[in-house]
Amino acid sequence: MLNAQQRESLSALLGPKGFLLPEDHDLAAYETCVRYGQGKAAFVLRPETSQQLSRAIALCHEAAVTLIPQSGNTGLVGASVPDQSGVQGVLSLDHLKGEIAFDPDNRSVTVGAGVRLSELNACLEPLGFSFPIDLGADPAVGGMLATNTGGARFLRYGDVRQNTLGLEVVLYDEQGTQLNFMKGLRKDNTGVDWKQLFIGTGGAFGVITRAVLNVEPLARDQAAALIVPRDDKAVSEILLALESRCGPLLTAFEGMSREAMLCAYDHVPSLRNPFAGGDVPEMALLVELSQSWETMEGEQPLSGRLETVLGDIWSFESEPLVDALVGSVHDMWSLRHALSEGVKHAGQIVPFDVSFTRRELMTFRSAMAEELPREFPGVRICDFGHIGDGGLHFNLVIPQDHQGYRDSSFVERLRAWVIVQVVERFNGSFSAEHAVGRSNQAFYDRYTPQKLKQMSEELKKMTSPDPLGAVTLS
Amino acid sequence: MLNAQQRESLSALLGPKGFLLPEDHDLAAYETCVRYGQGKAAFVLRPETSQQLSRAIALCHEAAVTLIPQSGNTGLVGASVPDQSGVQGVLSLDHLKGEIAFDPDNRSVTVGAGVRLSELNACLEPLGFSFPIDLGADPAVGGMLATNTGGARFLRYGDVRQNTLGLEVVLYDEQGTQLNFMKGLRKDNTGVDWKQLFIGTGGAFGVITRAVLNVEPLARDQAAALIVPRDDKAVSEILLALESRCGPLLTAFEGMSREAMLCAYDHVPSLRNPFAGGDVPEMALLVELSQSWETMEGEQPLSGRLETVLGDIWSFESEPLVDALVGSVHDMWSLRHALSEGVKHAGQIVPFDVSFTRRELMTFRSAMAEELPREFPGVRICDFGHIGDGGLHFNLVIPQDHQGYRDSSFVERLRAWVIVQVVERFNGSFSAEHAVGRSNQAFYDRYTPQKLKQMSEELKKMTSPDPLGAVTLS
Repeated sequence: MLNAQQRESLSALLGPKGFLLPEDHDLAAYETCVRYGQGKAAFVLRPETSQQLSRAIALCHEAAVTLIPQSGNTGLVGASVPDQSGVQGVLSLDHLKGEIAFDPDNRSVTVGAGVRLSELNACLEPLGFSFPIDLGADPAVGGMLATNTGGARFLRYGDVRQNTLGLEVVLYDEQGTQLNFMKGLRKDNTGVDWKQLFIGTGGAFGVITRAVLNVEPLARDQAAALIVPRDDKAVSEILLALESRCGPLLTAFEGMSREAMLCAYDHVPSLRNPFAGGDVPEMALLVELSQSWETMEGEQPLSGRLETVLGDIWSFESEPLVDALVGSVHDMWSLRHALSEGVKHAGQIVPFDVSFTRRELMTFRSAMAEELPREFPGVRICDFGHIGDGGLHFNLVIPQDHQGYRDSSFVERLRAWVIVQVVERFNGSFSAEHAVGRSNQAFYDRYTPQKLKQMSEELKKMTSPDPLGAVTLS
Repeated sequence: MLNAQQRESLSALLGPKGFLLPEDHDLAAYETCVRYGQGKAAFVLRPETSQQLSRAIALCHEAAVTLIPQSGNTGLVGASVPDQSGVQGVLSLDHLKGEIAFDPDNRSVTVGAGVRLSELNACLEPLGFSFPIDLGADPAVGGMLATNTGGARFLRYGDVRQNTLGLEVVLYDEQGTQLNFMKGLRKDNTGVDWKQLFIGTGGAFGVITRAVLNVEPLARDQAAALIVPRDDKAVSEILLALESRCGPLLTAFEGMSREAMLCAYDHVPSLRNPFAGGDVPEMALLVELSQSWETMEGEQPLSGRLETVLGDIWSFESEPLVDALVGSVHDMWSLRHALSEGVKHAGQIVPFDVSFTRRELMTFRSAMAEELPREFPGVRICDFGHIGDGGLHFNLVIPQDHQGYRDSSFVERLRAWVIVQVVERFNGSFSAEHAVGRSNQAFYDRYTPQKLKQMSEELKKMTSPDPLGAVTLS
């Protein structure tokens, strides 16, 4: 815990708005994750600059308090909130903003870790650009880097790692050492690419304070379709046919289960149900084409192209399509983005953010549809996800009248069973784009080879000699 | 050095074709790099499998001999050949091939480190795909990974890092520990992404033995143009205009200096000179558009699109274009790919593979054109490169009648001076895509912060407790 002098030093360093104690009204917001997880903070630090953050870490090092780095606080795995002990401090990136500096020639932007995705894009859009990671939530840049998010347009633009040209990091060591990798070069191979160590590791080795990010031109034309595939096997055929016919115009290929769509319609009654006769199919695919350039004379708009391509796939001998509706891009994404909220309101959600090779994803889904009801009767599979890149939000919902509702041992059995299927049987990942966090620690422990655990521990010692950062990968 | 028993064990393990001694006829080829560098090998190991390679490393560990990993041996920085001492062994990846396994659903391929880029593509092309890293040389996969090459289509497809979905690695430790990261997932954030440590670090931490790589559909239509920009400043304007009008259709934006083109024409007299009146401009840009899908009814082929877009840029008030010729894609790349050979025959080449932000690259070129002749009279600047991603092959040529020709102290002064400009003045990188190697060791020593050197050393100790691998990053 901090003594009186340490409190005073932190308060002097960060100002009254930068150092919150439990008696401060604003502190509670940092104890509860917007989505999952809740704890108790001894204090909250809100530095405005990397220098302040560095000095604050050095001060906390003296006091030997554990810091939990917290960015937008929108994660799924309980990584951003303190535990229940009340002795951990929250190191918030909220105020770490600074100037958003766009470099048109380099097609890149320099941005502070506390800037929200929506803020960044609000700044870039009038200039004709955006940071191309498309998410339902609104995280801040630091957390997007620490979890290496990918989102719904990964298929076209890759993940955060692939769009990071520079990083600034502060280590949890005695000095709060600042490391600067901010040249913003697209090609640079002069030794270890240290940026990679901090991307996707949840702040385990240091706090990301600033970044140089690649930006992409805004879409000038878009088209979207809802597709009902014949069955799980047809999904891959449709994906490959679209990739072959549309190349980089294909910017999203999302899957939505009937159960997830039903939850969304229940929770958001105003949502338009576009399916024939109001019926909801077993699965629907959301397909999007985008182009950032103007359509030329004689060319169809993308909606026309999408209709032509779907017509083509429609006539395949294998008959992979049952239905396909080209319609409003906005309406279709409204449905997609309502799934998350809808599912949350259907009961107790047990969320999984898993991934597979594109081949195995559909096999996993089929197997689960058959086996899960047998193993865990009454639990609903309300999944959706990024079929085009192998990522799946495999959400299970325990209805309120189910005996396992709010029964933590039931939930733990359920989680363990699913992850065994994901990792051991379908060679998948237990965390696609939310990093390890508290929720996945047991799976990390179980599935990480001893040699790699040991190497991670040594990295941890190397970057911060004392285990000040509470995020452990060991 | 190996004793008799160790020789026998290696010979028994690898067979007569897998273990070469200086008296073997085939050994000499491993002592000289195809491009730069020459040394003397005590022996050469050519394992056929990762298991053999692992056991060979364990045996060499006992003997405490230094191994130099050698892949396609086409690098620029002397990383792939042994030194002059005659006591180092070469660990060749030549025979590490195995099956090339294409996964159509995952759009990926599993491949051994010894497979050449041309072999890989010969296998993928009949299937309608290629590994999208486009290089003048023909390296093997292991070396491409170890140097993180990018090449001429980086602008569209990124570097090797961005196209790597899986890696298998053997460490230089006592056991020759094998690490397997071969799931081939596109999204996976479950701790440290260890693949990243081995990509671009020149084999310093282990030997890459296999990989899962992303593949991309082949182009079905292409168009190329040679463009003469008004001046250096116009180059950036043309690049941004093309990006904005062509998006991901723009697959290359290469720059070629007059001096480099003259060298190519001198060396390859059959090369067609497309410029008006046979004159060669100060600089030419090679622009390529590609699409992997069929042109639809009513659409122009890409050559028509490129003409329209260039006509548009032609009419800019700033008049960025002096000349623009849309022509044969093959002819234009023939010129581009002849530059490297041409420059080599013009005298003693002092090659630099440097990079900058896209903004600084042209500023660097202008400054060098003015200052280098003053500092080093008579040295020719024959540069060319990947303007679209900031990479520049800044080749200097010392003519045969120059006093500095084959004068190593002159060459060292020249190299040091250029790198000071690159790194200290223009905030660039001394190695864009050939890693550190022997040639850049002095620059690594000079420009790597102490803390990072120390961290690299610790990584080295962690992955291989004894300094068996000769590639050092410390």
